[in-house]
Amino acid sequence: MAEDRRTVDSDRPFTEALRVREGFGLSDLDPRSTPAFTGRKADGKAALLEHDDELSSLQEQLYAASVGGDSRRRVLLIVQGMDTSGKGGIMRHVVGRVDPQGVQITAFKKPTEEELRHPFLWRIRKRLPEPGKIGVFDRSHYEDVLVVRVHDLVPQQEWSSRYATINDFEQELVEDGITVIKVMLHISAAEQKERLGKRLDRPDKHWKFNPGDIDERENWSDYQEAYQAALERCNIDAAPWFVVPADRKWYARLAVQQLLLEHLRALDLRWPVATFDVEEQKARLART
Amino acid sequence: MAEDRRTVDSDRPFTEALRVREGFGLSDLDPRSTPAFTGRKADGKAALLEHDDELSSLQEQLYAASVGGDSRRRVLLIVQGMDTSGKGGIMRHVVGRVDPQGVQITAFKKPTEEELRHPFLWRIRKRLPEPGKIGVFDRSHYEDVLVVRVHDLVPQQEWSSRYATINDFEQELVEDGITVIKVMLHISAAEQKERLGKRLDRPDKHWKFNPGDIDERENWSDYQEAYQAALERCNIDAAPWFVVPADRKWYARLAVQQLLLEHLRALDLRWPVATFDVEEQKARLART
Repeated sequence: MAEDRRTVDSDRPFTEALRVREGFGLSDLDPRSTPAFTGRKADGKAALLEHDDELSSLQEQLYAASVGGDSRRRVLLIVQGMDTSGKGGIMRHVVGRVDPQGVQITAFKKPTEEELRHPFLWRIRKRLPEPGKIGVFDRSHYEDVLVVRVHDLVPQQEWSSRYATINDFEQELVEDGITVIKVMLHISAAEQKERLGKRLDRPDKHWKFNPGDIDERENWSDYQEAYQAALERCNIDAAPWFVVPADRKWYARLAVQQLLLEHLRALDLRWPVATFDVEEQKARLART
Repeated sequence: MAEDRRTVDSDRPFTEALRVREGFGLSDLDPRSTPAFTGRKADGKAALLEHDDELSSLQEQLYAASVGGDSRRRVLLIVQGMDTSGKGGIMRHVVGRVDPQGVQITAFKKPTEEELRHPFLWRIRKRLPEPGKIGVFDRSHYEDVLVVRVHDLVPQQEWSSRYATINDFEQELVEDGITVIKVMLHISAAEQKERLGKRLDRPDKHWKFNPGDIDERENWSDYQEAYQAALERCNIDAAPWFVVPADRKWYARLAVQQLLLEHLRALDLRWPVATFDVEEQKARLART
């Protein structure tokens, strides 16, 4: 592998390098680092494009297995991160390169009145991917132990019980055939400041800006603490966390694409075998 | 315009050329023709790519207007066509080039038991696009006057009343701020035979094939008649039909992209003006 400086010697380099392990500390991870990738920006962008076809093809096989076979396999990619961490860019530049018929994206916003009247997982369950699909969550049930914890939106006793509830829920998903990939995009406070500044500089980006985004910067360390708790307490073997350094957008996109690819390859997908006699159908078609 | 053989002298060439008008006959339209486009396959593919950025940008402005402004504008693209007419290719190669966060695709399959217990528009209403979104229907409520009519799935009295119901429904959508674009992909029986044959030839396409697709070829002329009736009877000014010759996939994709573009341009979208004082927010951000 010495010739190719972009790969490391493993079948699942990004999965191995980004997975949260015992003793992980968010504050120890440099948001500008590029684990499992030694190339630079141009190499990263090229690598992203190079893998488009493989990702599309694996997605089609996943979908085919649900139609032609009777597989209940699905993938759920959960993307979390502070404002401006690049969640939208992941949707557009990674998920957006896959056939949209095979993907279900849900952006979870502030819960509605109706959603608040139900248990916090109610609205999540409604958006789980169908068999054969890649479901993508832009924010998720983790907001219920992040913003909710930082702002005490429910009593501590309630939010603190949610970590165990989430673990049980995700275990259940995995047992039902869902490959759960949980990604946190990790940016620095300084990078966020720069990105918010760019939104203010450009009139065509003003609609993305909300003055409340600046207020939230005062709670930066509380959010980091809440993320650290979620990463530690909801890191079950069946659905571990991956923390992606995200100050470099090109790296974050490549890393999420590679995490998806490595998980899809591991499913060992095959084209379903025809349930009809191919020659007989060819003969029938010829007679029409 | 003499220099550019790919455009015709109008602001909305595809809209004008493909719109169903008084006296339209489906059987008079050559499925291999390429209205409003005099180029060939390579030109068509190039034109499709050339317009990606504009389509993306208009979609983002539509979305921004719903977030930053309070616009309820939405677009609904309805795609109908016989099996193998290329609906999936439209989803992938036209709709799939837009930011997936701004698009909601729904593929309407055979109705479920629950759906059958409700009026035929019930499942349709549930999938209408939210403000700012481009909704795309792969099949639609028109199946309720197509397959239902061909196979007498409900009494004639019932399906024949649906044309008026559909007209009222679509009029209501338009009055609610939805730009409705109805497209029929028009292929020939010979082209369908060839496309089904290709699915049978390739083991990686077998999952897309269903022996029932061949049975349905016996009803080809009944389907053409049912389409003709829908095109004539549900062609209201607020939501007219467009018939896209679709024996050439590259043309059908270009035509649907151009129909989308022409309709989006006509909305005269603008970036929403900031509802906050930009300089004040810059100063606040600088202090964090």
